[in-house]
Amino acid sequence: MNLVLQQVSNIPIIQPGDDLGRVISASLKENEIQIRDNDILVVTQKIVSKSEGRFVNIEKETPSSEALRMAAICEKDPRLVEVILRESREVVRCKKDTLIVEHRLGFICANAGVDHSNVKENSDGIWYLLLPEDPDRSARKIREYFSKHESVNIGVMIIDSHGRAWRQGIVGIMIGTAGVPVLVDMRGKADLFGYDLRITQIGAADELAAAASLMMGQADERVPVVHVRGFPYPLAESRLSDVLRPKDKDFFR
Amino acid sequence: MNLVLQQVSNIPIIQPGDDLGRVISASLKENEIQIRDNDILVVTQKIVSKSEGRFVNIEKETPSSEALRMAAICEKDPRLVEVILRESREVVRCKKDTLIVEHRLGFICANAGVDHSNVKENSDGIWYLLLPEDPDRSARKIREYFSKHESVNIGVMIIDSHGRAWRQGIVGIMIGTAGVPVLVDMRGKADLFGYDLRITQIGAADELAAAASLMMGQADERVPVVHVRGFPYPLAESRLSDVLRPKDKDFFR
Repeated sequence: MNLVLQQVSNIPIIQPGDDLGRVISASLKENEIQIRDNDILVVTQKIVSKSEGRFVNIEKETPSSEALRMAAICEKDPRLVEVILRESREVVRCKKDTLIVEHRLGFICANAGVDHSNVKENSDGIWYLLLPEDPDRSARKIREYFSKHESVNIGVMIIDSHGRAWRQGIVGIMIGTAGVPVLVDMRGKADLFGYDLRITQIGAADELAAAASLMMGQADERVPVVHVRGFPYPLAESRLSDVLRPKDKDFFR
Repeated sequence: MNLVLQQVSNIPIIQPGDDLGRVISASLKENEIQIRDNDILVVTQKIVSKSEGRFVNIEKETPSSEALRMAAICEKDPRLVEVILRESREVVRCKKDTLIVEHRLGFICANAGVDHSNVKENSDGIWYLLLPEDPDRSARKIREYFSKHESVNIGVMIIDSHGRAWRQGIVGIMIGTAGVPVLVDMRGKADLFGYDLRITQIGAADELAAAASLMMGQADERVPVVHVRGFPYPLAESRLSDVLRPKDKDFFR
């Protein structure tokens, strides 16, 4: 069995209001990729956020006293910290050069995913990009486009790149899903010799996010979408929150 | 550009002393996979450990007072905890059902990777399997087999599945490498609009480990090796320690 990840290039620079389903569909045709049932499209959060107009001009921000206090510790622009805090439920770690938060969507990441790279320069302001409002919904919208206009039942995943505790380097990670199973339950399955498995749940969506991220690169490579064929588990209803570890079972806050 | 991950099935049950390079080479031929320069073989730690005879019979263990103390907290067999502690530099978290350590190789994981599943039942003992002694060396040995006997320059990675802080589900992760770059440095690269990138290092080996893990499954599927073609970065000298976050930059111990 093969897993094949194909770069979808030729995606134009996305503008607020663009219909991503339509844009990706056109690029697939240009790339001569014939989409089929059970294929998966992995989409970087960046173009989703752009299509949703999630730009913020930090010159317009007035930092709160909390933002000023945090900014002094992590040595970031207090106006940026103000935006980060607004996107967050709580601060998990604040140290020099590092601001790690629980994002309002529930996952832990640096800077609440607020990002400056690949955001178009604009003469009147210092622009940053927030993560999509509701990445599960964004994924569903793209999935529905393909269901409606191309009559295919596919999975769609929105991904970002996060750092990890303990290990260096960032890896692709799922922040929104429509149809891609998040956890695959192995409980009750036996191993080769009939023992119960120690491992009970596979983080399948995150494993696929990492794989797709490898094909996106991070610089000027312009591969915001990866087409996947051969994902080894059936599509299933799913959502970001499936992957979030309940706070009382999280020993690393 | 495509990334293609192909399951290498037909790997026989591995016995201590087996030459994994030779075994995998034979299975590739059976699977009609023609290995080429720059291909990568991803190998689960399980068969590496078996080939290295890393079995431990916990019935022979006498738990130390430290092991007894920890075992009472995490509610595991004290003889197993004794083995886990011997494989560890320090205990990071010990709670009911959970024993997370810094493995002697430097990474953080549950139970020091000591595992009972897929370990052959034996009438005289309760057998567990330790991680390979030196997974970088194990990877190099396989790489050298292919260099010597098939005249190809490939990358080899040994992987395991680890849980994560904050997120549910286990994902594939690199624990040994020969030739597969661990971190790909993006510093100095500009984004689409010429900004410096916020993201400086991509955890490329871990991203590939996650991808390959997806194709291995965890139960009785018997896919201990995945063949990879189209990895987007050049092979480079590398080692496990490249991925380990220095303790003074790790905020989540």
